Amino acid sequence: MSDYEILELGPIDAWGALTTADGRTGKGFVDRMIDTQYIGLSATTFAPGTGTPFAHSHSILEEIYVFLTGEGRMALGEDVVEVSAGTTIRVGQDVMRAIQANADSPADLAYICVRVGPGELKDQPKDSSRADSPFAS
Amino acid sequence: MSDYEILELGPIDAWGALTTADGRTGKGFVDRMIDTQYIGLSATTFAPGTGTPFAHSHSILEEIYVFLTGEGRMALGEDVVEVSAGTTIRVGQDVMRAIQANADSPADLAYICVRVGPGELKDQPKDSSRADSPFAS
Repeated sequence: MSDYEILELGPIDAWGALTTADGRTGKGFVDRMIDTQYIGLSATTFAPGTGTPFAHSHSILEEIYVFLTGEGRMALGEDVVEVSAGTTIRVGQDVMRAIQANADSPADLAYICVRVGPGELKDQPKDSSRADSPFAS
Repeated sequence: MSDYEILELGPIDAWGALTTADGRTGKGFVDRMIDTQYIGLSATTFAPGTGTPFAHSHSILEEIYVFLTGEGRMALGEDVVEVSAGTTIRVGQDVMRAIQANADSPADLAYICVRVGPGELKDQPKDSSRADSPFAS
């Protein structure tokens, strides 16, 4: 039998129905819904004016974010950059990141996040640190 | 300075303007446009009735495809599965894969492909094999 597995996340504009094991809505971890070898992958969407509940960084993992719909801002260390459909951001180690959909975004801010370390995903230690989001009101 | 890099792919419905170094249109390799450490990532779109020019497999890399718009079919070894927005497929080693947008797809078939091996991307050997696409007419 061929080694593949299929997961239906649903259309991007329905990702608000995704949930994580710890009860966050609008986010789904593909690598917790199917088995993956090296690749960590999540799908997230934020309604206008909402965003990540905290900033975080990784000491080991690399991440790439691909924004698909909507308009917002991403904090990267001391910087804040504008993001919209097609904005793709590679984030290296120890960079605090947080994301916020603009209040006037014409659509939910949806994105894919890929996270990968040196070797199989199951062998990566817990390497994340959290801080307050600079967008928190 | 924080370790991040930004690339603008443009909106999904404009990915037809992406090109690869070897002249394929409608496809862009993020990891060849910016430096990445572990993550290989490409963005692709096919007009209705078109698809990958060949099937391929990897002996080392794992891939995950996330379909974003349109409707089509993906060959996985001897199987053919229907794909549409939100279909996410993890493909293990040595599985021949090919993709085709349906002729009556309501939109271009656009997807992200993540490819990762055991360690840094630059250290992965060339591990791909090609075959004819089962969708070729």
